[in-house]
Amino acid sequence: MTDSIRDSRGNRIRLVIAYDGAGFHGFARQDGLRTVQGTLEETLTRMLGTPIEVYGSGRTDKGVHARAQVVHFDVPYGPPAERMVHVLRRRLPADVMPLWADQVDNDFHARFSVVRKTYRYTLYRGAMPNLFLYRFSWHVPGELSLSAMREAAAHLVGRHDFSSFCASSASQEDKVRTIYRIDLAGADDQLAIEVEGNGFLQYMVRIIVGTLVKVGEGREVADRIPAILAAKDRSQAGETAPPHGLCLWNVEYPPEYGGKVVDPRADL
Amino acid sequence: MTDSIRDSRGNRIRLVIAYDGAGFHGFARQDGLRTVQGTLEETLTRMLGTPIEVYGSGRTDKGVHARAQVVHFDVPYGPPAERMVHVLRRRLPADVMPLWADQVDNDFHARFSVVRKTYRYTLYRGAMPNLFLYRFSWHVPGELSLSAMREAAAHLVGRHDFSSFCASSASQEDKVRTIYRIDLAGADDQLAIEVEGNGFLQYMVRIIVGTLVKVGEGREVADRIPAILAAKDRSQAGETAPPHGLCLWNVEYPPEYGGKVVDPRADL
Repeated sequence: MTDSIRDSRGNRIRLVIAYDGAGFHGFARQDGLRTVQGTLEETLTRMLGTPIEVYGSGRTDKGVHARAQVVHFDVPYGPPAERMVHVLRRRLPADVMPLWADQVDNDFHARFSVVRKTYRYTLYRGAMPNLFLYRFSWHVPGELSLSAMREAAAHLVGRHDFSSFCASSASQEDKVRTIYRIDLAGADDQLAIEVEGNGFLQYMVRIIVGTLVKVGEGREVADRIPAILAAKDRSQAGETAPPHGLCLWNVEYPPEYGGKVVDPRADL
Repeated sequence: MTDSIRDSRGNRIRLVIAYDGAGFHGFARQDGLRTVQGTLEETLTRMLGTPIEVYGSGRTDKGVHARAQVVHFDVPYGPPAERMVHVLRRRLPADVMPLWADQVDNDFHARFSVVRKTYRYTLYRGAMPNLFLYRFSWHVPGELSLSAMREAAAHLVGRHDFSSFCASSASQEDKVRTIYRIDLAGADDQLAIEVEGNGFLQYMVRIIVGTLVKVGEGREVADRIPAILAAKDRSQAGETAPPHGLCLWNVEYPPEYGGKVVDPRADL
């Protein structure tokens, strides 16, 4: 896989990481703030002795976690990808966790090659706060009608203009996205809401979750979802669920890049 | 339960809390540092408008968590204990979680009334770092012989002088403690080591865990534990396991105070 053109451009590395979003001002680099992209770039630049620019599969907002975020970067030389993961595990702070890496063709792009993404939002339903979940879940201890929430979720699946489920400040022009599935899976005191789609607008998953909770609590009816979508008006949907319950759960690339970066059988 | 003596001393409240130790310089109040005791006292003092002093069941070191720490404090007046929990949930930071509270006799003391305590230390054994466990576990991905670790643990159960399993800087004079049980329970990629005893010396659980891991990795033999105990020499035992894997798991009071503060059937 080495030819002169490839060599002149260096090696492209794909790196899959998890991170605890609580300590970061989001993924995207911002001057003077601790961000995931900034932390990765500083660590790689120091490690490789040459300025490294990192491209992510997409931004995550302040406080949002990732079980599987994907980045790519080009290195003029350096250790094999597998070895780089081990070095990064020692050099990165504890809240950024390199899972695996491989060398990819130069036409792979962490963002533009994405086929689908999955987010998981976790609700914690127990009466008492939970030490091990408080950081990764939204505590909603009251009664919720899961059947009403599933009914509402079914209305959101498909290709829609999601203007009503998008931050009013969002910069994206085209608000049409496709959601392939929304699954609600409850176990013990937890309710996991998984949303898989071809792309997501700003706050989209958090507004979907806030709206589903509103339906589950009986403050909104599932049947009104089509009208909320049609209104293309943010004020029609429910509140934005807090960021710390949200986690970028999986990223899928075309088959030649191995499909989903985390085996979905690991998803419970 | 109100008589004039009691009224003049005010009401004694027992409060059970969980906390994420990562953001605290331990339980015990220290000037200018964020501690659990300091945070509770400041919040209660502001909430009740009178200086409140808080007594814990014992200290936990910097970085150590609690699933069930117990404190008591006296209030001249104030809302009923159950109501106080709800108010505290709104006023305390997210990493200190009030579980429940009750009003107790004035001869109850969070520390001196303790009968037994249970600590749980969690090892994470997976090959890859784990987003949801990294904060609450020690990552030990290599091979471990659980049978050798159980054999070593059995030697530690009972009444012993634990000088070899105690920080050399520890201030306690009497190093004799009784361990009632050490259980190793593995599930998926986790190994939970539960240690129940009548009291613990500084770093005692973490040195026990470090020694058990040393045995599990084959760098020490289980049969040498009696000699290590007899030596009364800290340098004979294994390394001190890191604080973030340790959690104060349960505290037990006499039957008239309800026994264990968390139902042990919730322990998995």
